[in-house]
Amino acid sequence: MIKTTILRTRKPRLKNPVLIEGLPGVGHVGKLVAEHMVEELGAKKIMEIYSPHLPPQVIVEHDGTVRLVKNELYAYKSKSKHDILILVGDHQSATNEGHYELTGVFLDIAEEFKVERIYALGGYGVGQLVETETVLGAANNIKLVKELKGYGVEFKPNEPGGGIVGASGLLLGLGELRGIDAVCLMGVTSGYLVDPKSAQAVLKVLCKILEIDVDMQALEERASEMEKIVAKLREMEQGQMPASTDEDLRYIG
Amino acid sequence: MIKTTILRTRKPRLKNPVLIEGLPGVGHVGKLVAEHMVEELGAKKIMEIYSPHLPPQVIVEHDGTVRLVKNELYAYKSKSKHDILILVGDHQSATNEGHYELTGVFLDIAEEFKVERIYALGGYGVGQLVETETVLGAANNIKLVKELKGYGVEFKPNEPGGGIVGASGLLLGLGELRGIDAVCLMGVTSGYLVDPKSAQAVLKVLCKILEIDVDMQALEERASEMEKIVAKLREMEQGQMPASTDEDLRYIG
Amino acid sequence: MIKTTILRTRKPRLKNPVLIEGLPGVGHVGKLVAEHMVEELGAKKIMEIYSPHLPPQVIVEHDGTVRLVKNELYAYKSKSKHDILILVGDHQSATNEGHYELTGVFLDIAEEFKVERIYALGGYGVGQLVETETVLGAANNIKLVKELKGYGVEFKPNEPGGGIVGASGLLLGLGELRGIDAVCLMGVTSGYLVDPKSAQAVLKVLCKILEIDVDMQALEERASEMEKIVAKLREMEQGQMPASTDEDLRYIG
Amino acid sequence: MIKTTILRTRKPRLKNPVLIEGLPGVGHVGKLVAEHMVEELGAKKIMEIYSPHLPPQVIVEHDGTVRLVKNELYAYKSKSKHDILILVGDHQSATNEGHYELTGVFLDIAEEFKVERIYALGGYGVGQLVETETVLGAANNIKLVKELKGYGVEFKPNEPGGGIVGASGLLLGLGELRGIDAVCLMGVTSGYLVDPKSAQAVLKVLCKILEIDVDMQALEERASEMEKIVAKLREMEQGQMPASTDEDLRYIG
Repeated sequence: MIKTTILRTRKPRLKNPVLIEGLPGVGHVGKLVAEHMVEELGAKKIMEIYSPHLPPQVIVEHDGTVRLVKNELYAYKSKSKHDILILVGDHQSATNEGHYELTGVFLDIAEEFKVERIYALGGYGVGQLVETETVLGAANNIKLVKELKGYGVEFKPNEPGGGIVGASGLLLGLGELRGIDAVCLMGVTSGYLVDPKSAQAVLKVLCKILEIDVDMQALEERASEMEKIVAKLREMEQGQMPASTDEDLRYIG
Repeated sequence: MIKTTILRTRKPRLKNPVLIEGLPGVGHVGKLVAEHMVEELGAKKIMEIYSPHLPPQVIVEHDGTVRLVKNELYAYKSKSKHDILILVGDHQSATNEGHYELTGVFLDIAEEFKVERIYALGGYGVGQLVETETVLGAANNIKLVKELKGYGVEFKPNEPGGGIVGASGLLLGLGELRGIDAVCLMGVTSGYLVDPKSAQAVLKVLCKILEIDVDMQALEERASEMEKIVAKLREMEQGQMPASTDEDLRYIG
Repeated sequence: MIKTTILRTRKPRLKNPVLIEGLPGVGHVGKLVAEHMVEELGAKKIMEIYSPHLPPQVIVEHDGTVRLVKNELYAYKSKSKHDILILVGDHQSATNEGHYELTGVFLDIAEEFKVERIYALGGYGVGQLVETETVLGAANNIKLVKELKGYGVEFKPNEPGGGIVGASGLLLGLGELRGIDAVCLMGVTSGYLVDPKSAQAVLKVLCKILEIDVDMQALEERASEMEKIVAKLREMEQGQMPASTDEDLRYIG
Repeated sequence: MIKTTILRTRKPRLKNPVLIEGLPGVGHVGKLVAEHMVEELGAKKIMEIYSPHLPPQVIVEHDGTVRLVKNELYAYKSKSKHDILILVGDHQSATNEGHYELTGVFLDIAEEFKVERIYALGGYGVGQLVETETVLGAANNIKLVKELKGYGVEFKPNEPGGGIVGASGLLLGLGELRGIDAVCLMGVTSGYLVDPKSAQAVLKVLCKILEIDVDMQALEERASEMEKIVAKLREMEQGQMPASTDEDLRYIG
């Protein structure tokens, strides 16, 4: 395999579709939201995307079988105004050029389905433990910025200062060159831990915008597990407890 | 040379062939097994594979001549049910994209010979000295998992946790996309040392599956040499002997 | 996007044009000069250059909108002898091969406009704080060297010792292969700080050569801000004050 | 420039030519020999090779002009049996794939001139200061090994242990695939310093093989300068003098 390859498993007709991207990134916020939506909405897989720009790796499943790392596209036929495409995956591209190529592939798919808007989901790492439900936004035109402010999304001048890197950033940037509306919703998070609480905040905003209901219980449970850990971490910060649980944290999520 | 290049030296006809891959990897387990099989079975070289994805390097032989680093394919006409192709080599690809391309080449060859199954051999590094004959398995479909369990191959949910990386992983993953049955047999090993004992364990399983006999003496001798070294290492761990033999260890195998 | 892409917004006719390159580099000297010229001269944007060799990143603007990282070409119709093309950008290529490809694109543009000469601007980092207005030169033929000496540009045998790396270097080197005159003007600078004072020195030389006037006030203001910081740094060096302002320095400019 | 590009300046007819490669490498041994031969023999430049696989860099000359980093081919019409092509350059490829591509280009040139043999020159770094005139050899067939032994070239089983990396290695390895005889002559050297003494040793062997005379005075002078430095280094090792001359050493050669 020397080229990015798409396997199509279904060809749905979608009405006024939007595309939600939740590939792995800071705090796995986008990934948590997107995978939760696939699960709760019962979205159907319609494409698998394999690429030499992804790591040369298979993942071993629970039953001993393997699957090649990939990105996947799911479709959900909604009762509200917009049907929904959801892009999830094991990894983002491992190289700069790969990011450009794969995002180009995602935008080809968006154009094929006449996607009306792209929602790129991610986390905004602030480098310290936070208890906030802030969702930071960015968009590829000013009309979208105004609209999102109405949903409580915050915009801060020139933030994130380092820009938005990877698939989320390029969906907005390359999307603009193709005339596709795209916004990025970033849950504020420490950046150290997988953050289901921040994912909840992002999901709430998204549900309001898309006028859909998504059961949040699973995400809440993970968030409350995580809060216990965060509480422990704070204790440790103050009392300088030995960092014995450090290892565990990395595997949560 | 800007493309992967295959030199064909023979074109054998093979009956129900399987492909065994033993490229360098963790503990050189796969490489030990595959090279031992080539040697003991007297398999004939039928292809040399050169590629710009391999390091830009020649190896100096005993007589002062050199050879370009390469991968090689050997064929063995068996008296049992399956003829055998054996893939060995000096190196795996040095880049991610190269792994995808080279594995694509290996699968083209597998298709050309109508290979019925691929056995990707490797080691599973557990990070400490082990005395076990455990062979861990993974496969690209559930039927294979069940079959392998019958041969004593162990399957643990989601292990290896980091997935299977490189040619072995991609032979399973890309193999599945082409409809080729493929399994990975991983000898449990420390990951620190070349491990002929672990290689023996893998080879035993493989001989049972393929219903062939392979003389193991050479591998046993290397294993017993290695055991002496491991014994010394254990002593050193306990008595904190000076690590004077450290250098040697790297060159064993 | 898998290829470098040019968006053209205007197609001006230019008389005897020269091309000024001020992409990011040592002390951001070239970038400061070029962006200052665009601003003060009111040059018009005529091209945007996007490339997979640039980082996969969007920059967030003051109003919450984003823009994909890019290089830009501006045109200024001068009252003196030469119209001016100015190349600015967020980043240079992230890879070696990308530098060659992008510089090739820049030279294609130079040929399209029949550019008479290229001025590649940069900084020459000397590794310590300097108070000098020295502008070091290099050129792709000896006639240019002689001419520049007449403008006070200094030439030191084999300096910079490490050669000139990136777009500036390749504009001279690849330019020579295409028969395009090109010079590099390097403001001597510490290499640690964004250096508007060094930028002023380069701009003065450039204005003399091109027989144009550029208001320098904005650059002077930034330079005098920077001088305060440099003064503080010197104090710190002598009195070993705590390096509390260290963080700020990185964000100036 | 996105492809390797050859500029031809002359097209000589050569009788029974051999190709000597002296690109930069360990101890710059090969480079010293090849550049010395170009100088002393008055060989004429016949090709310049530019490539995006070389660093994106120009070198500043003594007079303030620059030149793009490149490889160069020189031709010398000899009075003995073989005319000589000499390959020198500022750098080798910066990437693995680039090594394969550029060596392919070198071999195309060798085939074009019907080169009878390639001499790849280099150093063999032993990691400590040495006083020896040993020249280690390797070749791409056994006949060459035997012939070289007659000239005092030493062959040690499996040395260099790490193989031969880069252009020298690939000229032998890829050369063999094209049926071109190629040998590597490696001057034993510390690997820490530019080593004109080791270069002399290699040159002596080469002159004997090619039945040519090359004045060695310039190389001797550099070697005796270097010996003084080596003597100082030995003193320092013993008396633990402050390493004040350390910086200078790097610039010698």
